[in-house]
Amino acid sequence: MKLRVKDMDIATGGIMVAILNKKDAKKLDLHSGDRILVKDHSKEVTCILDISESKKAVSEGKIGLFEEVLRHLGVRRGNTVSVKYTGKPESIKHIRDKLYGKHLNYTELYHIIDDITHDRLTDIEKTYFVAAGFVNKFSTQEVVDLTKAMVETGQKLKFKGVTLDKHCVGGVPGNRTTMVVVPIVAAAGFTLPKTSSRAITSAAGTADAMECLAQVELSRKKIKQVVHATGACIVHGGSIHLAPADDKIIEVEHPLSIDAEGQLLASVMAKKFSVTASHVLIDIPMGKSVKAKTKKQALHLKSMFELIGKRLGMQVKVMITNGSQPIGYGIGPLLEAEDVMAVLRNNPRAPQDLKEKALTLAGLMLEMTGKYKDGMAVARKLLEDGSALRKMHQIIAAQGKVPKPVLGHYTFVARSTKSGKVREIDNEIIAKIARIAGAPEDKGSGLLLEKKVGELVSKGKVLYTVYAESSSKLDLAVDFLKENKGYHIGD
Amino acid sequence: MKLRVKDMDIATGGIMVAILNKKDAKKLDLHSGDRILVKDHSKEVTCILDISESKKAVSEGKIGLFEEVLRHLGVRRGNTVSVKYTGKPESIKHIRDKLYGKHLNYTELYHIIDDITHDRLTDIEKTYFVAAGFVNKFSTQEVVDLTKAMVETGQKLKFKGVTLDKHCVGGVPGNRTTMVVVPIVAAAGFTLPKTSSRAITSAAGTADAMECLAQVELSRKKIKQVVHATGACIVHGGSIHLAPADDKIIEVEHPLSIDAEGQLLASVMAKKFSVTASHVLIDIPMGKSVKAKTKKQALHLKSMFELIGKRLGMQVKVMITNGSQPIGYGIGPLLEAEDVMAVLRNNPRAPQDLKEKALTLAGLMLEMTGKYKDGMAVARKLLEDGSALRKMHQIIAAQGKVPKPVLGHYTFVARSTKSGKVREIDNEIIAKIARIAGAPEDKGSGLLLEKKVGELVSKGKVLYTVYAESSSKLDLAVDFLKENKGYHIGD
Repeated sequence: MKLRVKDMDIATGGIMVAILNKKDAKKLDLHSGDRILVKDHSKEVTCILDISESKKAVSEGKIGLFEEVLRHLGVRRGNTVSVKYTGKPESIKHIRDKLYGKHLNYTELYHIIDDITHDRLTDIEKTYFVAAGFVNKFSTQEVVDLTKAMVETGQKLKFKGVTLDKHCVGGVPGNRTTMVVVPIVAAAGFTLPKTSSRAITSAAGTADAMECLAQVELSRKKIKQVVHATGACIVHGGSIHLAPADDKIIEVEHPLSIDAEGQLLASVMAKKFSVTASHVLIDIPMGKSVKAKTKKQALHLKSMFELIGKRLGMQVKVMITNGSQPIGYGIGPLLEAEDVMAVLRNNPRAPQDLKEKALTLAGLMLEMTGKYKDGMAVARKLLEDGSALRKMHQIIAAQGKVPKPVLGHYTFVARSTKSGKVREIDNEIIAKIARIAGAPEDKGSGLLLEKKVGELVSKGKVLYTVYAESSSKLDLAVDFLKENKGYHIGD
Repeated sequence: MKLRVKDMDIATGGIMVAILNKKDAKKLDLHSGDRILVKDHSKEVTCILDISESKKAVSEGKIGLFEEVLRHLGVRRGNTVSVKYTGKPESIKHIRDKLYGKHLNYTELYHIIDDITHDRLTDIEKTYFVAAGFVNKFSTQEVVDLTKAMVETGQKLKFKGVTLDKHCVGGVPGNRTTMVVVPIVAAAGFTLPKTSSRAITSAAGTADAMECLAQVELSRKKIKQVVHATGACIVHGGSIHLAPADDKIIEVEHPLSIDAEGQLLASVMAKKFSVTASHVLIDIPMGKSVKAKTKKQALHLKSMFELIGKRLGMQVKVMITNGSQPIGYGIGPLLEAEDVMAVLRNNPRAPQDLKEKALTLAGLMLEMTGKYKDGMAVARKLLEDGSALRKMHQIIAAQGKVPKPVLGHYTFVARSTKSGKVREIDNEIIAKIARIAGAPEDKGSGLLLEKKVGELVSKGKVLYTVYAESSSKLDLAVDFLKENKGYHIGD
């Protein structure tokens, strides 16, 4: 069937979509979600079909194409293309099998992950995959295969010899230990090519905070240069396409806030495998408002990470840490970067919780290499004698120093409405307020905490200051915190 | 936040959608799929948020609204509305619970079904519900509660006393027994308010075939009048909103072609419960290319229908029938209606398979009432003495007679390429060819079969004739059948 192109003026960010009027779809007996082959004279592309119920969006005889399709085919409004039904990708069958409880092998998982990576599955199809893996639980072998498939469908960064890496299962605001641990471990002479993420639901990811000090969007070639020169890096992993299926899976997990364990394990391990890490330290914070809410959950996750690591030939150590409140004082890219630099500079007012947690993690990593018995003492020496700070300056210079952002000019001081002891700080609420104030895009926005759990506060005293780069964002943040400050003050 | 309305010129057919530019979404920390309250001065509506990545579709400061939202708020392009984040519906929590394997109670299932009915859930959320119910299996109690929730969220048609109904689990082309059974049973003096569906993936539903003889889109009031006057009706159930959640669930089952048993049972039983049926006969065809492929599957489905019926206080009888090939000769609305009328008229050339199956089913229904011992003999008498035909004429007159459609003028004769015995006829392929030829929208389009399973055919002899109302549709159908005629001829 020949159809005239209508430019829908919409970009999906990847997925190829074509829209037919319902009458044309009927003629070919096509349904929403079916795959059609759209052909110009020389080029063709498989699109996912959407149906226009009215003639307003797409009338009979026309085909509405999204930006990605127009670009791929090199066609414009008014051009003629032909369409033809084409079967669903083979991966759909494998997803069905998983729904029916079948064990999937590597090839089948590879098909699914490859199609997800290349936007060949619809949201509904991806959701069935996530739901099937969630309810029917991936076996250890499936998680191992899923990890390998995620690695194979992405780019790799290869390093020789002992290569360290770390990961935190997230959820704790201000938890910027990576930026302290990396320079310590590198100062001890080890290789640690750290690729970090940006914030998704938090106020800052390591990549967002590091970007206040240095460039983080580096090419793979540049990253290798930085690591060869300094032993380490702290860069954004998103732009170099290590195991990219992960982000596309998260998109359909978000609406129900489910944590499909198999996918979580695979996505973390795939990022490590992609940089050929031999020794990996995993930090699992445990607390009310983080991922692992109970000791049991944390221990289960720990054993799974260890098991998968073993099967992948990586040495994995897992540490369960306190995730009951934010770490450090600053929440937001710049404020967190400043906490980190204060620790590295041995500033006496630097947050001690951040310092001690980073030393513990760095100590464990050093011990994992087999070179040290009391790793924490070595780590403390490298931090306190200025070696870690010098290493951080080297890394910053190698990645490319950037002008430091300015702290938001618009501020609001949140005060306690009663006297008492701080019993709890809600990580999610604190992150939400910082985000509404502009973090992580506005680097100078965020919260500076004055009180932490266990401290006494009098009525009317400062709990934290909100910083924003615009008055309108500050207003929105204040509107929000008036309903919930995120602090529980008890007797 | 105040935003200027952009008319997206798109109708979704129900669901309320609003689009924000990603920068505005970021300001309010909103994500795709979040719910926002969109407010005019006096009216407000909860919308599901979509994010525009570029400024092309929706630029900063604007809000793209779909037709449904514009109509609901009574706003137009350029008007100003305010938006505010609002939590997800409570039903999301219940869907999560089901994913985690929890048993849902009536109230929880009601919330989910009510939100599905009123388009308050996204496709991703609905998919999680279907997948959770599919993998974690609904218990019998949950299916009963799901049925009741589907009934309560729809309209009802109440009848007094013994009320019969029947249902076929579908998949067999030409299986128009309903149109023979209903007049027989009504001629015996019973009430049978039959609401039927239109074709979804088949060449004709009972509603499509009946529409060649009478009006089928009747109001609830009119349906009651018809049933009071004649004892029965054969109308389209879709437009009177009996258990409407069903159709919206099917939308997300289609992409993976999964049959979530719990939903299937609930949707069938809900339609029966909505018309206060006391005695229900279920026909489960069994065969390679229908829903129940094996005896085991058919028997399991049978026991579930009986169990659910019992729990709902309905007398349910299930008959497993031969679903290995089409029934009758005609495939397509008019051709199927003609098969039916030939049976009712006792035309000697009427399809005997349709006649005998209808008599068996009618006989069973008559026996279920407790009034007859040998129901089939009674049914045969009522058919052969012309009572059933007279009843059919009464029903047609009461619903409103329509001019008979004309058989498609464009024909193509499909011939056998070898000599031998017809071993198999693929129900799905036959339906597909009829659909491409125009059925069910083009009432006079479809297939007239010359050969059925077990018959001998010589090379070059006719297998079937394709009828179409337009030459272009005939061409498309011929293109398709050249690759697969749907017949397997063996030695």
